[in-house]
Amino acid sequence: MKNDDKVRADIRSLFEPLSVAVVGASNDDSKIGYKVLDNISSCGYLGRIYPINPKGGSILGIPAFKSMLEVPEPVDMVIICVPAKLVFQTVVHCSQNGSKNLVIITSGFSEIGNLEEEIKLVDYAREYGMRILGPNIFGIYSAPANLNATFGGKLILPGNVSIITQSGALGIAMIGKTAIEKIGLSAMVSIGNKSDIDEADLLEYLVDDPSTNIIMMYIEGIQNGARLTSILKRASKIKPVIVIKSGRSKKGALAAASHTGSLAGSDEIFDRIMKQMGVMRAETLEEGFNWCRYLNNAPLPKGEKSVIITNGGGMGVMATDACEKYDINLLDDIELMKDIFSEVTPEFGSMKNPVDITGGAKSSDYDMAIEAALSNNRIDSVIALYCDTAVFDSENLERMIWKNYTMFMERGKPIVFAVLGGRKVSDSMQKLRSEGVAVFDETYTAVQVMGYLYKFYRNMNETIIPPESSRIERQHIEKILKKVIADKRTFLLANEALKVMEHANILMPRTKVSKNIADAVKIADEIGYPVVLKVVSKDIIHKSDAGGVALDLETREELMDAYQAIIRNCRHYDPEAQIEGIEVCEMVKKGIETIIGARRDRGFGPIIMFGMGGIYVEVLKDVSFRALPLDRREILRMIKETKAYPLLLGVRGEEKKDIDQVIETIIKLGSLILECPEISDIEINPLMVYDQGSGVKAVDARILLNKEGGH
Amino acid sequence: MKNDDKVRADIRSLFEPLSVAVVGASNDDSKIGYKVLDNISSCGYLGRIYPINPKGGSILGIPAFKSMLEVPEPVDMVIICVPAKLVFQTVVHCSQNGSKNLVIITSGFSEIGNLEEEIKLVDYAREYGMRILGPNIFGIYSAPANLNATFGGKLILPGNVSIITQSGALGIAMIGKTAIEKIGLSAMVSIGNKSDIDEADLLEYLVDDPSTNIIMMYIEGIQNGARLTSILKRASKIKPVIVIKSGRSKKGALAAASHTGSLAGSDEIFDRIMKQMGVMRAETLEEGFNWCRYLNNAPLPKGEKSVIITNGGGMGVMATDACEKYDINLLDDIELMKDIFSEVTPEFGSMKNPVDITGGAKSSDYDMAIEAALSNNRIDSVIALYCDTAVFDSENLERMIWKNYTMFMERGKPIVFAVLGGRKVSDSMQKLRSEGVAVFDETYTAVQVMGYLYKFYRNMNETIIPPESSRIERQHIEKILKKVIADKRTFLLANEALKVMEHANILMPRTKVSKNIADAVKIADEIGYPVVLKVVSKDIIHKSDAGGVALDLETREELMDAYQAIIRNCRHYDPEAQIEGIEVCEMVKKGIETIIGARRDRGFGPIIMFGMGGIYVEVLKDVSFRALPLDRREILRMIKETKAYPLLLGVRGEEKKDIDQVIETIIKLGSLILECPEISDIEINPLMVYDQGSGVKAVDARILLNKEGGH
Repeated sequence: MKNDDKVRADIRSLFEPLSVAVVGASNDDSKIGYKVLDNISSCGYLGRIYPINPKGGSILGIPAFKSMLEVPEPVDMVIICVPAKLVFQTVVHCSQNGSKNLVIITSGFSEIGNLEEEIKLVDYAREYGMRILGPNIFGIYSAPANLNATFGGKLILPGNVSIITQSGALGIAMIGKTAIEKIGLSAMVSIGNKSDIDEADLLEYLVDDPSTNIIMMYIEGIQNGARLTSILKRASKIKPVIVIKSGRSKKGALAAASHTGSLAGSDEIFDRIMKQMGVMRAETLEEGFNWCRYLNNAPLPKGEKSVIITNGGGMGVMATDACEKYDINLLDDIELMKDIFSEVTPEFGSMKNPVDITGGAKSSDYDMAIEAALSNNRIDSVIALYCDTAVFDSENLERMIWKNYTMFMERGKPIVFAVLGGRKVSDSMQKLRSEGVAVFDETYTAVQVMGYLYKFYRNMNETIIPPESSRIERQHIEKILKKVIADKRTFLLANEALKVMEHANILMPRTKVSKNIADAVKIADEIGYPVVLKVVSKDIIHKSDAGGVALDLETREELMDAYQAIIRNCRHYDPEAQIEGIEVCEMVKKGIETIIGARRDRGFGPIIMFGMGGIYVEVLKDVSFRALPLDRREILRMIKETKAYPLLLGVRGEEKKDIDQVIETIIKLGSLILECPEISDIEINPLMVYDQGSGVKAVDARILLNKEGGH
Repeated sequence: MKNDDKVRADIRSLFEPLSVAVVGASNDDSKIGYKVLDNISSCGYLGRIYPINPKGGSILGIPAFKSMLEVPEPVDMVIICVPAKLVFQTVVHCSQNGSKNLVIITSGFSEIGNLEEEIKLVDYAREYGMRILGPNIFGIYSAPANLNATFGGKLILPGNVSIITQSGALGIAMIGKTAIEKIGLSAMVSIGNKSDIDEADLLEYLVDDPSTNIIMMYIEGIQNGARLTSILKRASKIKPVIVIKSGRSKKGALAAASHTGSLAGSDEIFDRIMKQMGVMRAETLEEGFNWCRYLNNAPLPKGEKSVIITNGGGMGVMATDACEKYDINLLDDIELMKDIFSEVTPEFGSMKNPVDITGGAKSSDYDMAIEAALSNNRIDSVIALYCDTAVFDSENLERMIWKNYTMFMERGKPIVFAVLGGRKVSDSMQKLRSEGVAVFDETYTAVQVMGYLYKFYRNMNETIIPPESSRIERQHIEKILKKVIADKRTFLLANEALKVMEHANILMPRTKVSKNIADAVKIADEIGYPVVLKVVSKDIIHKSDAGGVALDLETREELMDAYQAIIRNCRHYDPEAQIEGIEVCEMVKKGIETIIGARRDRGFGPIIMFGMGGIYVEVLKDVSFRALPLDRREILRMIKETKAYPLLLGVRGEEKKDIDQVIETIIKLGSLILECPEISDIEINPLMVYDQGSGVKAVDARILLNKEGGH
C-alpha cells in the first residue's frame, strides 16, 4: 500500500468506524464521558460500542470494560475523556488493543503550554501506527456512520456539508445553528490542538468522500501550510471549499526582516493564497452558512450571463451594484434582452438589465418574466427581486417563488430571490427558507450567494497548467551558502548574493569589488563608464543611509572623488564598521522599478511577492503574493493585481515593457527558494524592467538565510 | 420673516398639516386616490380632510368637493393623484385655493423625459408660493400628525426614525420591513423627481424636529450637493444621519477632463464626502435598519474603552477582528482588567480583553462578569458574546440578556449581544429583538452596530473649526479669464495659468515666453541656469507627449539645441499646431511630488483633491477628496489618507517635509475655485514639497473653465 493510500484508509476509519470505545464513560450525566456515550448510543450508531470505566459494570445499559486491555477486538476509534494525567496510560493501553484512531477530547496539553506531554502522546501513537485527533476537542460527528461522538447537542441534521473547526466552542454552537438553518451535515470535526491529524489530512479524505458536497473550515492558525495549500488547490476544483479564518488583527502581522514579510500582514498573505487556491473565504459565519446552503442546492450555471428581474427600480439598482461587487456578469445585449422580455414587460417597464416589470406587477407577471428567462439558453442564471407593493397578490408570493425555484432547479439553471416587505413577505420567506429555497431579505446577500456560485464555477472550469521551474546551479550555490553559514552569518554580502543570482541565471549589473582607488579605476575602465560605487561591509546593511553609494560617475576624476567620499561617510556612519572594499558596478539604465521577493513563510512555506519597487516600496505597499510553485497564468495574475502592471503596459505613450522577462525572473527566484532550503528570504529591489525585448535587470539583491542555517 | 425661517415654516406644514385634500379621491378601491384617502382617514389623522372628485358626493363617507376651487379654506397639503395631463390644471386651482404644499403622486414627468411639464408646474407653484413634493412619489407619512398620506400599507409603527427615499417602490417595501423589524418611524417621505423639495429641505426640518432621533436616506443621485453637504454637516452632529446610496457601478464614473474628475469614480467621491460630513453610509438596507434600531435605543458611551466578554475563544477572536474593522478601541490595560475581572473569571479563563469566562460559564457567571464591567467606570461599553455549550442553563439565556441589557440602558452604558446556537438560542433572540433588545446572531453585526454608535459619538463630540480661506486678487484674475472666454477657449495657456496662480499667491517657477532663440537665451541669463524649455501652444495640451519639453539645460549651447529640437518635434507631432513661443522656466529642484486638484463637481459643487503626484498619477490613483470649504484639521486628514503622507513625514532617514505649506496651498486653491465661478478645474501637478521650512513649488498648473464660460 502506498503511504498516501494508507493515510486515506486510516482516516476513513475515523469517519466510518466499525467499533468505538469511550474511555471515561460514565453514568454521571454531568460528565463528558456520559454525554459522548449518550450521543453515540442514542443517535443511531450501528457499530459496536465499548464503554470503558475502571468500575466496569454497565453504562447507559451497555456492558462496560475496565480498561482498553479488556476489549475483545482492535477498536477503530477510541474516544478519550479521562483527565489529562491519565491520557498517556490510556494511549499505551490502546496500542496494546491495536486501536486505529484516538479521539482525545481531554484538554490540558499544548493549549496551556504543556507541549511536552502532547509530543509524547503523538510520538508514542505514531510508533504504534495510531492516529490522534485532538487533544482539546469536542469530538467528531459523521453522518455516513450515524455517529455523534461529541459532547454537543443531539440534534444534528444529516446532509452534505462537512465542517472542520479549530474552535471547539464555536463548533458546538455551529451544530445547533446548522440544525435550525437547515444546513445538513455530513461531518463535523473538531481538530483542537492538531497534534497529529490536521485540516490537510481531513481535507484529503473529504475531497473524495461521496457524502460531502461542500467543505467548510474554521481556522485560527496554520502550521503546515505548504501541504494544506496543495490539497486545497485540488479540493477546490472538485467541491466548494469555504474558509473562515479569524485572528486577522494587525497585531498578528509578522515582524520580519524583509519586505516580503513586512509589506503585508499575515492575514493579507493568507487571503491572497486562499484566492490562489480557489478557496472561498467568508468573513462571518453567517456568510459561510449562506454559501453552504446555496452551493449545496443550486445547479452550476452553464455560462456567465445573468439577468436581474425586479418590480422596483431601487432594488434593481442595488442588485446591479451588488453584481459588480460580487463579480456577476449581467447580460447586456439589448436586442437580445428585447427579444426575450418584450412580451412580458409592461409599458413604462424596462427590458434592459435589470428587467423592470414595474410596481404594477402581479405574481403572474413574475411567472411570465421568469419563465422567459428560464426558456432562453443565452441566459445562464437569474436574480429575482420583489419589493412589497399595494397591487401584488401577496397570498401568491410563496407559490410564485416555490414554483419558479423548483422549475429552475429541475432545468439546472441557478436562481436566487430577494424579497423586501412586511409581515406576509417575511412569513413567506421563512417558510420557503425552511424548505431549502434560496430566498433572502437582503438584495446584497442574494447576489452574494450567486456570486460565490460563480466563483466556484469559474475555479472548477479553469484548466490546470503545470507549474514552471528554472534550472538552478545548486552545487555552486551550496558552496557559497556553506561559506556564509561557516562564517556564522545569516545574510549574504553583495558579491555573494550576486554570485547566487548568477547561478540562478538572474542578470545583474557587471560588478567587481575594488580594494583601493587604483583598483577601482582599473575595474571601471573594464566595465565602461558611467559606473556606480557601493561600499562592501557586513556591518553596513543600508548602504544608502550610510552614504556608501555614489551613482552616475562619468569620469575617472568623479570616480576617485566619490571613492574617497564613501570611505569618509562610512567611517562617520559607523566607526567600528569593517569595510571589505568598494564595489564598482555598471550604471544601470532607468526602467520601471519593480520588486520581487521570495520568502519561506512560517505558515505557508515558500511564497513569492511582486510589486512596485524602488526606494518607496514601504510607502506604496503595492505588492501581491502567491504560494509556490506557480504556473505562468497565476504569475501574470499576480502581476496584474499590482499597479506595476499598468506601468508595464506603458503609460502616456511609453512602449510596452518586457513582462515576459519579469515572469521569467519570478520563475527563477521561485526555483531558487524552492531548491535551497537554507535560504529564508531573497529580494530583488529594484528589478528594472525595460521595453519589450530589452529584458530586465536586477539592480540589487539581498539574500537572508534561516537562523538555524538550514531547512 | 427671514427666508430660512419661511422655508422651515413651509416644510412644517408638510409634516403637520392642519388640513389635507386628496385630488383624485375615489370610491374605487383599485385606484390610488382611494388608497391614499383610506390610509389618511383610517390611520388616525385628526385634521380636516377634503376628498376632491369631479363627481362630488361622498367618498369613504367623507363629503367630497368637485374641485379645489370649492374647498372652503386654504389647504395645508394637497395630495394630487390625477393623471399627468390634469395635474397642471389642479395646480392652478390650488393656487386659487391658497394651498401651501402640493404632494404630487402622479408620475409621467421628468422620469420619462417629460421635463418641460415638470418645470412648468414648479415655476407656477413658486410664483404662487406653493411647495411641491414629487412628482412620481408614493406620498408622505408623518407620526406627529398621525398622517399616512401614502398608497402603501396601513400598518406603520410610530417612532423616532425619519426615512427619506428617492425610490418609491423601495419606500413602500421599507414601511412593511420597518414594521416587522420594530423600527418606529417619525416620518417616511418619498421625494421622487425632487422637482422642488429635495433631501436638503427635508433634512433642514428634520434635524430640529423633536420627534426625529435618527434620519435615514435612500438616494440614487445628487443635484444640489453643496447645499446638502452643509446641512448634512450640521445635522450629523445633532442626530445620526444614515445614507444608503445605490448606483455605485463604475459605469457611473464621471468622464472628465482633469484628474480630479477621472482618478476616482463619482461613488468614491460621494463616499469620501459623506465621511467628511459625519454621515454614516450603509451599503445595504439591512445594515441601515440595524444601525437605526441600535442608535435609536442605545445610550451614548462616555469614552472609548470597550470590553468583550465571551464564553468561547473563537467568538472572542472574531469579535476582536470585528472591533479592528469597525474602529472600536478595546481596553488593554492588563492590570486594570485583572482588577475588574479576576473574581469573575474561572481558572483556564482569560482576564485579558476579550474576557473569556470559558465554556463552563452559566448565566450567573455572565451576570457577574457583565456586572463587573458595568460598575467600573473605566469601561465605557460592552460587547457580550454567547455560544451554545452543553453546560449553560439555556432556559436563563433570555432572562440574563434582558436583565443585563436593561441595567446597562438604565445606567447609560451601551451594550450589545451576539449569540450563536440552536433552536433555544434562536427563539430567545427573536423574543428579545421583538422587545427592542440589541441582540444579534452574528458577531460582526453586533460589533458593527457598536462601531457606528462610536462613529456618531466621535463625530458629535468633535469641536467645530472654522473653515480657512486665503485672499485672492479676484479682479486681476477676472481680467485674465475674460480674455480666455473672449478667445472662446475653455483652457488657460501656461502663462495665463501662471498669472492666475500668482494672483492666488501660489508660488510657481520663474518663467517667461520667448519668441525666438536669442530671446530665450536672454531670458535664461536672467533666470539663471539650469533652465527648462516648454512649448506654448493652444493646440498642444500634452506637451511631453509632443516632445515639447526639454529639462535641465545647463548651458547656452544646450538651450539653443533644445529650442530647435522642440520646434522640430512639435511640427512633427501636429503640423497644424500654432506655436506661440517657447517658455523658458527656472529648473525646479526635485522634492516629494504631490498633486492638488480643485474641481466643480456636478453633484457636490467645489471639491478638492490631494495625493501622490508626478507622471504616474493615473496609475497610482492614490488621492483623496473633500468638499469645500475646509478647515485645517480636515485638510490634514485628507493628506493623511494618502500614501503621500508617510513620504511627507520623511522615509528612510529623510527630513520631514513642509506639510504646512501643502496645507496653505490647498487653502489657496480652494479659495481660488470658490471665488471664481468661471473655473471648472484647476490642477497643480506636481506640487514639489521640500524639507520643512523650505516650502513648496507648483511646477505645473492647468486651469479649465466651465463650458458655458461661467457659473
